[in-house]
Amino acid sequence: MNDVIQTLLQHRSIRKFENRLLDKEQIEAIVTSAQAASTSSNVQAYAIIGITDQYKKERLAQLSGDQPYVAKNGHLFIFCADLYRHKVIAETEQVDFSETLQSTEMYTVAVIDAALAAQNAAIAAESLGLGICYIGGLRNELYEVSKLLQTPEHVFPLFGLVVGYPAHTPEQKPRLPMSAMYYEEQYVHDTQKVRTSIEQYNDELRNYYDSRAKNSRLDTWSKQIIRKMSVPSRIYLKDFLKSKGFPMK
Amino acid sequence: MNDVIQTLLQHRSIRKFENRLLDKEQIEAIVTSAQAASTSSNVQAYAIIGITDQYKKERLAQLSGDQPYVAKNGHLFIFCADLYRHKVIAETEQVDFSETLQSTEMYTVAVIDAALAAQNAAIAAESLGLGICYIGGLRNELYEVSKLLQTPEHVFPLFGLVVGYPAHTPEQKPRLPMSAMYYEEQYVHDTQKVRTSIEQYNDELRNYYDSRAKNSRLDTWSKQIIRKMSVPSRIYLKDFLKSKGFPMK
Repeated sequence: MNDVIQTLLQHRSIRKFENRLLDKEQIEAIVTSAQAASTSSNVQAYAIIGITDQYKKERLAQLSGDQPYVAKNGHLFIFCADLYRHKVIAETEQVDFSETLQSTEMYTVAVIDAALAAQNAAIAAESLGLGICYIGGLRNELYEVSKLLQTPEHVFPLFGLVVGYPAHTPEQKPRLPMSAMYYEEQYVHDTQKVRTSIEQYNDELRNYYDSRAKNSRLDTWSKQIIRKMSVPSRIYLKDFLKSKGFPMK
Repeated sequence: MNDVIQTLLQHRSIRKFENRLLDKEQIEAIVTSAQAASTSSNVQAYAIIGITDQYKKERLAQLSGDQPYVAKNGHLFIFCADLYRHKVIAETEQVDFSETLQSTEMYTVAVIDAALAAQNAAIAAESLGLGICYIGGLRNELYEVSKLLQTPEHVFPLFGLVVGYPAHTPEQKPRLPMSAMYYEEQYVHDTQKVRTSIEQYNDELRNYYDSRAKNSRLDTWSKQIIRKMSVPSRIYLKDFLKSKGFPMK
């Protein structure tokens, strides 16, 4: 196994950071790495906003469901799906992109572009000995978030990425067994097989939660998914996106 | 700069591969790396299908816009947004996830999860000396693709990732200047500033295309974006997704 794969396999989300900011060189290495990721037909349909202002961080922490590490970290990156620059090209060159900009395809491309770039940023940060955590909670209150970040139409703040010097070393959570994630030649949708691998994973996660040093509890994947999915969340997202130029036609 | 960041910064898409297949260990290292990526609240809302069958590869190459490297490579991975396992949990445990499964939020989470995993796979592959190329063209004919891969409802084949031993070393395409991609504290939507950075990037890309050893041509970013966006593509995607259980409510 090489250094790179070792970095990838050692990932765990860090939610407690030392009181120490990233320096300019670290931020540049992280952003340059993000920009090196693949992008669909070179559209580069994303943007990154770096937040250092402590008032803004605290406000974003509140808006993201009161997660303290959104305020206390080494640097907060906001990754946005971004078709604003493309809209500027349309206006400058007097061409019409409206059908493309409003399509489900282009929304999907912009989300993928932003996510590929963010994962490069995350790995670059981890390779520098820093810890990271994605902040999906950023999508809790997007009307407020987009006002705070002054994002225009065609820009969608997708998630945050907090980066900093780790102040804890959480255990690694086991993932679904590879046989339940990777299929050969075609998708396997034999319900009984899927149930069996979910049961196997439930057992593994039950042991993990039961035996871990901190926050030991009784839990399984099925229980987590039920808690997560039986109450729908962020249903307003469709209307928000429509109001921002992403009607997903 | 460390080995990991060096791997990230050396990325270029590879579209010509040696006639040599990946072995089991390489595939496992790539899939395990993919699974180590962050996933929203541990939902792991994606699946990977590995294709080795040559007939299938050739059919997928045809369906993806006749890209020969989709058939000729070391391995073809298909990354899917996947809520099928969650639907099985709902049925097994007799709970109702329908509002969640149908939401724009959950679609977005699944696309992000799949993209983060794929980028880890891409980086793992590149760290092993292999080359990669994402295949967005997989979304050209998804009714056919989903039949071929037998993906059930709640599964959306998002893109391909071809991996193999590189048979060429293309030059690296310059990206947007960092100042046009990374903003501090808030989004900069001063149209004039955006125009200026697009012009700067147009000049840089013009030089790149003009001076490169192979396929030299006259081109700019604005021209590429106009070619890409003035004719909308994959407008059927919304209906396809709806038919597969992603109505994006």
